[in-house]
Amino acid sequence: MDEQHNPWQITGQKEIYDNPWIHITEFDVINPSGGKGIYGKVHFKNRAIGIVVLDENMDIYLVGQYRFTINEYSWEIPEGGGPFYEAPLEAAQRELLEETGLKANHWKKIREMHLSNSVSDELAIIFLATGLSQHKAMPEATEQLVVKKIPFEEAFKMVMQGEIKDALSVAAILHTNIFLQEGEL
Amino acid sequence: MDEQHNPWQITGQKEIYDNPWIHITEFDVINPSGGKGIYGKVHFKNRAIGIVVLDENMDIYLVGQYRFTINEYSWEIPEGGGPFYEAPLEAAQRELLEETGLKANHWKKIREMHLSNSVSDELAIIFLATGLSQHKAMPEATEQLVVKKIPFEEAFKMVMQGEIKDALSVAAILHTNIFLQEGEL
Repeated sequence: MDEQHNPWQITGQKEIYDNPWIHITEFDVINPSGGKGIYGKVHFKNRAIGIVVLDENMDIYLVGQYRFTINEYSWEIPEGGGPFYEAPLEAAQRELLEETGLKANHWKKIREMHLSNSVSDELAIIFLATGLSQHKAMPEATEQLVVKKIPFEEAFKMVMQGEIKDALSVAAILHTNIFLQEGEL
Repeated sequence: MDEQHNPWQITGQKEIYDNPWIHITEFDVINPSGGKGIYGKVHFKNRAIGIVVLDENMDIYLVGQYRFTINEYSWEIPEGGGPFYEAPLEAAQRELLEETGLKANHWKKIREMHLSNSVSDELAIIFLATGLSQHKAMPEATEQLVVKKIPFEEAFKMVMQGEIKDALSVAAILHTNIFLQEGEL
């Protein structure tokens, strides 16, 4: 199979839904095997920006909130939506300040991921932020967030024991653990 | 904030879209801060089942396909949809056989994750499969998959270098790497 050539053909499309965060289109397609079908695609208007925030004691900041979609409370790294007209790093800096009141001197992009590529084009970008200073948090009005700082080792255990279940946070914390093992922090 | 109490209130809902894989509802909500708004939620009719498949030489099986949603070729661990009426392990065994023709003697559930909890309720369940025997693959008619077997170390490098970008595969391979480091395989 040719990795350069898209084997999906689009023969029609219908706009289904639009809100400030997502746009949904149903495509008529001919699939890679030549059969006719439909594909409902969820387009995200923002990138998912996630930030591993580590202080000089190797403590990490986590944000807790009740997630509407899953009906569960979820502990996560600081995350937010970054519109495509805004550079990912700027979005990360803005989100970090909004949610925690922190600014960071050192920023490193550590990973891009597609979060749910069977249905959506949502792209996550993960940063590592160190060299912190505390300022005033400015959470969005719709959010009700709890911020806590815990030893990185404890967050790593929460991931391994399944207490942190948000995919972006899981990958970010497992990746940072490798940095720590390799002495890259 | 009370982790047990859902602070989101639903005051109305409108069904937007339905296909065999997803159902979309727009809810009228009162958000945790007391403001009125809407929430477009994508409900998944299947769990996302992913399988880390390791043979006795510590080679891992990857599946390549052109993903419609992102317009990109993607190398991933074997994945598929598991309907809620089917036990996750049975779905994993069925998907593995369909995509690779493999059966495995040993199965271990290693992780559950929410893939995109700002918009969807999609739940991923990741298994580790070892003790392999080769049978006949039976791919779904809509799929055009390439299966390859590579050393686990190489797949780990693909994750760290960003060549594997599928979140489920990233988390699964980083998690398996920890098992290998700890001698649990």
